[in-house]
Amino acid sequence: MNSDKEYPSALHVQDGVDQPAQVNPYLQYTPIFKPQTYTVEEYVQGITSGDRVFLSRAITLIESNLQKDYQKAQAILEACISRACPSVRIGITGVPGAGKSTFIEAFGKYLTSIGRKVAVLAIDPSSERSKGSILGDKTRMETLSTDENAFIRPSPSAGTLGGVARKTAETLILCEAAGFNTIIIETVGVGQSETAVKDMVDFFLMLMISGAGDELQGIKRGIMEMADAILINKADGDNVKKAELTRTQIRSALKLFPLSDSQWTPEAHTVSSLQHNGIADVWTMIERYVAFTKNNGYFDKNRTLQWQKRFHMFMKESLLDAFYGNENVKENISRVQQDLLNGKISPYQAGTKVLDDYFKHKED
Amino acid sequence: MNSDKEYPSALHVQDGVDQPAQVNPYLQYTPIFKPQTYTVEEYVQGITSGDRVFLSRAITLIESNLQKDYQKAQAILEACISRACPSVRIGITGVPGAGKSTFIEAFGKYLTSIGRKVAVLAIDPSSERSKGSILGDKTRMETLSTDENAFIRPSPSAGTLGGVARKTAETLILCEAAGFNTIIIETVGVGQSETAVKDMVDFFLMLMISGAGDELQGIKRGIMEMADAILINKADGDNVKKAELTRTQIRSALKLFPLSDSQWTPEAHTVSSLQHNGIADVWTMIERYVAFTKNNGYFDKNRTLQWQKRFHMFMKESLLDAFYGNENVKENISRVQQDLLNGKISPYQAGTKVLDDYFKHKED
Repeated sequence: MNSDKEYPSALHVQDGVDQPAQVNPYLQYTPIFKPQTYTVEEYVQGITSGDRVFLSRAITLIESNLQKDYQKAQAILEACISRACPSVRIGITGVPGAGKSTFIEAFGKYLTSIGRKVAVLAIDPSSERSKGSILGDKTRMETLSTDENAFIRPSPSAGTLGGVARKTAETLILCEAAGFNTIIIETVGVGQSETAVKDMVDFFLMLMISGAGDELQGIKRGIMEMADAILINKADGDNVKKAELTRTQIRSALKLFPLSDSQWTPEAHTVSSLQHNGIADVWTMIERYVAFTKNNGYFDKNRTLQWQKRFHMFMKESLLDAFYGNENVKENISRVQQDLLNGKISPYQAGTKVLDDYFKHKED
Repeated sequence: MNSDKEYPSALHVQDGVDQPAQVNPYLQYTPIFKPQTYTVEEYVQGITSGDRVFLSRAITLIESNLQKDYQKAQAILEACISRACPSVRIGITGVPGAGKSTFIEAFGKYLTSIGRKVAVLAIDPSSERSKGSILGDKTRMETLSTDENAFIRPSPSAGTLGGVARKTAETLILCEAAGFNTIIIETVGVGQSETAVKDMVDFFLMLMISGAGDELQGIKRGIMEMADAILINKADGDNVKKAELTRTQIRSALKLFPLSDSQWTPEAHTVSSLQHNGIADVWTMIERYVAFTKNNGYFDKNRTLQWQKRFHMFMKESLLDAFYGNENVKENISRVQQDLLNGKISPYQAGTKVLDDYFKHKED
């Protein structure tokens, strides 16, 4: 359950998650590791006073799948919701190789330099430590991770997208209660996780690099349309011209899309995370976006909608989990599947058979 | 339940749905309208022999929400599945004004002229007769509707998208059992219905017209990426140049998207439904697509996937309908909603409250 256990020990010092709480000097031979148990009030007090040890521990509780941790985690969360500071939540996506870590490092350092407190979270349901998952290797953000105004939290252990998204959304609130007013949620540009991130941020940023004319290959369909801005990264050295060209192409493509509900026109810019070119402009743009959407009411409306959407999404996922996790259902599905694929029955007839049995058993 | 009742009587002659079956001459004062009741075997025999009266009646049974019709409709459907002829299923979308009816009329006439049998169905969950819903006014396809090798069926009465989609998907099978080897499913370019259509066709066509540079405005985001081809309609008279320009723009935009699973490169063409320019080419393109995807295995794979997807979608929708239709759930949702919007509880805490109560009652 303790998802941090597999990280290099140096990280534990920063996060404080696995640190021994208090060692009893009289019990030399008991295991050193014995985390102290705090009350909900102590947690909340610790988090809101900005104590990152408490923040990290509380996040570990949220990420825990143990029933005993669940109640406490929810109580802490409930107390933190009303204590969350006003924030800007930024989602960042991009295919592997687009330079997300380097960008977040440069962007995050810039943000703390102008006095903002930055928390970096990740959504990556496919995450496996051994495959070098996003944020798994914190050394990729060496400077940012030692910044006292930054807090970096790797993706929770691999799980369903719904589960990971839920944990990230709850972690976000704890970070805001701890005073982090700029939340960056990173995701990798594959699969459905972009939609999950889009649904928990105010601003959605897509990172890409210029290539040989096939810049958009590899980007999952529909992701470009979700972006509030597209950054062409690595616009440095020999790459500058190519990056400018790509930016022009992207700008024309973006013009073809209708405006989203925010009424914001998506922008395309080049940046060099390496040379820190354009990094400050990214924040200026986000500030413009926030002012624009706060002014037209979209900012608040969007957060309320996201909040409600997650409520319904959670219920939906739970219902489906209960259904598909049911042993009778599993058996019946594999039974009707054959007739379905052989074209003997319609999808509706097959479905009715499974459902009838499910609801009959429910009512028993 | 008889969704044809509101159509002009002339249509009834063609469809034969509401025609009196046999009038008993000895009972002068009984109502003339008394549809004869046929057995499932008679229906199936009628449909597969190409009798459009039986086809229309069977579709009416499918569209009926009466329990007594349901069993019979499903039995007919089951018998028809294995008797469906090999077909090409084409989805057509486009904003109002793009000229969908005129195009379908021209395209449909061309198809029957080369010996194909064409069925035109519609998905339009928001359909209300009074608002001139798609296909509601059959006179818009005057020539096609009197063609003996064409069968036009308006959208089923307004209902949920799931319900309408289901009825259309089942109707499609009956049409194929009746020998219609080219199925056109029309939808209007708004909302989620495109996804529903995409999920029941082999080829997805998007119709648009050239405008003042804002051609894509009004098109729901993401729809362009679903299209296997985009037709710029009304490329006639003064419009030809503008249409060509739009086609060029669309072509560059399409290039930016990654290939879909079919490996087919989406095409953009201009057509004039009025002058019949480019109409034959549309069919040639679709034939090319069919050959291409049959060759790479996508055609069959896609149909199997659609079939399975609809099976799961139907179960999912049914589960959610049962949940959201539950009186306790409705009450609990409105109760937690307030705390949720006031930021007192998280979406997950709110959801847990509703779910706990639902499953508790289910087990009672």
